[in-house]
Amino acid sequence: MSLRRLGERGLIQRIRLDSERAPAAGVTVGIGDDAAVLAVTPGAALLATTDLVIEDVHFRRAWASPEDIGWKAMAVNLSDIAAMGGVPRWALIGLAVPEDTDAEDVAGFYRGLHAAAAPHRVALVGGDTSRSPAGWLVNVTLLGEHAGTPRLRSTAQPGDAIAVTGGLGRSAAGLAVLERGVAEAGRRGLADETIEVLTRAHLRPEARVAEGQWLGRAPGVRAMMDCSDGLATDLAHICRESRVSARIQVERIPLGAGVVAAANALGGDALAWGTGGGEDYELLITCDPDEAARLTRELPRNTGTTLHVIGEIETGGDGIRWLGPEGHAVTLGAGFEHFRD
Amino acid sequence: MSLRRLGERGLIQRIRLDSERAPAAGVTVGIGDDAAVLAVTPGAALLATTDLVIEDVHFRRAWASPEDIGWKAMAVNLSDIAAMGGVPRWALIGLAVPEDTDAEDVAGFYRGLHAAAAPHRVALVGGDTSRSPAGWLVNVTLLGEHAGTPRLRSTAQPGDAIAVTGGLGRSAAGLAVLERGVAEAGRRGLADETIEVLTRAHLRPEARVAEGQWLGRAPGVRAMMDCSDGLATDLAHICRESRVSARIQVERIPLGAGVVAAANALGGDALAWGTGGGEDYELLITCDPDEAARLTRELPRNTGTTLHVIGEIETGGDGIRWLGPEGHAVTLGAGFEHFRD
Repeated sequence: MSLRRLGERGLIQRIRLDSERAPAAGVTVGIGDDAAVLAVTPGAALLATTDLVIEDVHFRRAWASPEDIGWKAMAVNLSDIAAMGGVPRWALIGLAVPEDTDAEDVAGFYRGLHAAAAPHRVALVGGDTSRSPAGWLVNVTLLGEHAGTPRLRSTAQPGDAIAVTGGLGRSAAGLAVLERGVAEAGRRGLADETIEVLTRAHLRPEARVAEGQWLGRAPGVRAMMDCSDGLATDLAHICRESRVSARIQVERIPLGAGVVAAANALGGDALAWGTGGGEDYELLITCDPDEAARLTRELPRNTGTTLHVIGEIETGGDGIRWLGPEGHAVTLGAGFEHFRD
Repeated sequence: MSLRRLGERGLIQRIRLDSERAPAAGVTVGIGDDAAVLAVTPGAALLATTDLVIEDVHFRRAWASPEDIGWKAMAVNLSDIAAMGGVPRWALIGLAVPEDTDAEDVAGFYRGLHAAAAPHRVALVGGDTSRSPAGWLVNVTLLGEHAGTPRLRSTAQPGDAIAVTGGLGRSAAGLAVLERGVAEAGRRGLADETIEVLTRAHLRPEARVAEGQWLGRAPGVRAMMDCSDGLATDLAHICRESRVSARIQVERIPLGAGVVAAANALGGDALAWGTGGGEDYELLITCDPDEAARLTRELPRNTGTTLHVIGEIETGGDGIRWLGPEGHAVTLGAGFEHFRD
């Protein structure tokens, strides 16, 4: 059934029934009134973040299903709350689609949203729907809570160790596979399971929510943010906000499993994917260097996710130095920034 | 300067400097980190609402300046908080524009947002910016607080009086003037000041924030919502959510000043504009009939805004009956709904 037949009210009714099926702690009034009414935990700080997800800018419908779009729109916001060490709670969804969109595609989008939200018990509490003159437009606003002191970008100190969770470059490698075509990547010798892992990393990223909460409470962690625009761009944010600079040992940057294999098969640059590709949604921290060994040992024990030290925060404001194994400077491409070519 | 030259970081830096100039109570961390960190007033309920505002769906750049777009995107959200009787506090802005957009237009958009937000001391605390493949896309999420019990759509009772603030149909009349052209409307005899008032009602609506707070606290007020989709559609929401029906005396519907004159000059239907045009952002309430006279007398004294009783809530679920002066049924067009023709 097309949306033109279902109508906006029919669509909202469906969304509402879906959202009411999930548990919804702290929701006094959810979908169906002018605003949601929410009960913030006494004493907790409120966290709020919002992200636009736009067809042909952030995804292509040629390879992202409606479920994928919904999943990713939720995941990128979960990652922002994770980066503060917070607990995600409530989401508001803006969705605009062309009026000839199949209602089943819209249902798939909300299934993807719910699938990404459910493990974190995030409730859909409001939103807006509209006709779009061109393509899908999504805006997710996610509210969270923090019972202590959120970790910021502006609190790195000279001498801090710089560390990153998991592995980088998987999303960019997955995008390269999708752009080249899964079949062609297979013909070039990339294993099916590598293709699956990399494309999934691009289409259905997992926000490091438990890792953010653990690191946010851990003694010695100073600054934290998520790697959404690529290590180079995101670390530059920490440097600018904290008025420091950074030195990175390039050979210590953890590339995700399959990234080097994909670069070899497809003729890509694994290191460029790892430092500039973006959308990996790993967490980037700085910490007291005396705590670094304990953190890299304990994070995997507590969450199953690795943490690798990749460099050090330095004084001054002259940006990031990327160093090779013998201490020579390495030149890298920049991370992602909208509006620039 | 085009955004392509300014870049996303330059743009965010400008937005941030602007937002930091305004007072920002309750903002622990604003623009510049992964999420905003906010301090909700102890004991207050949190209100949250979000609205999409899309070029060629919600506005046309031919007659809406960037300032107008920003103003209206904020105002429609202020109206949602007003409709709960709440206090608007913090806003998150999603903005996507084509990459050749002039940075001055983007600055104008934020000026409009700030201009609408400032009287209510709403702070911009976060957002997202993106390239858009086609036209301007705006999403505003507004957070508010309520120290008591928010007024809902679902709490109307049979026997309640139905009342509406201010005057209806002004936004639709203003749109008709803009579509016909201001010069042509003048040639057809519409006074310059009427043209100014009506087009301003469409482009820069004023949310009834003080009125919502006063009505939300007033004894006897039962249900409340804002008239964003037109009286017919919005009253139908109250009926459905409250499982009641309604009877409206059509001749009691307050049409805004200049609406009848515009309909006569342009060949429009003033009553259709008043009941189906939408975007007037007046407040629609139901109340204890014994309190109605006091409310219609006291709201103007306290806020300068009129309140008119237009009908009564009835039992049963058979929708809205529109009655003429002699009690005969009147047939009206429906209000606005996305996706339907």
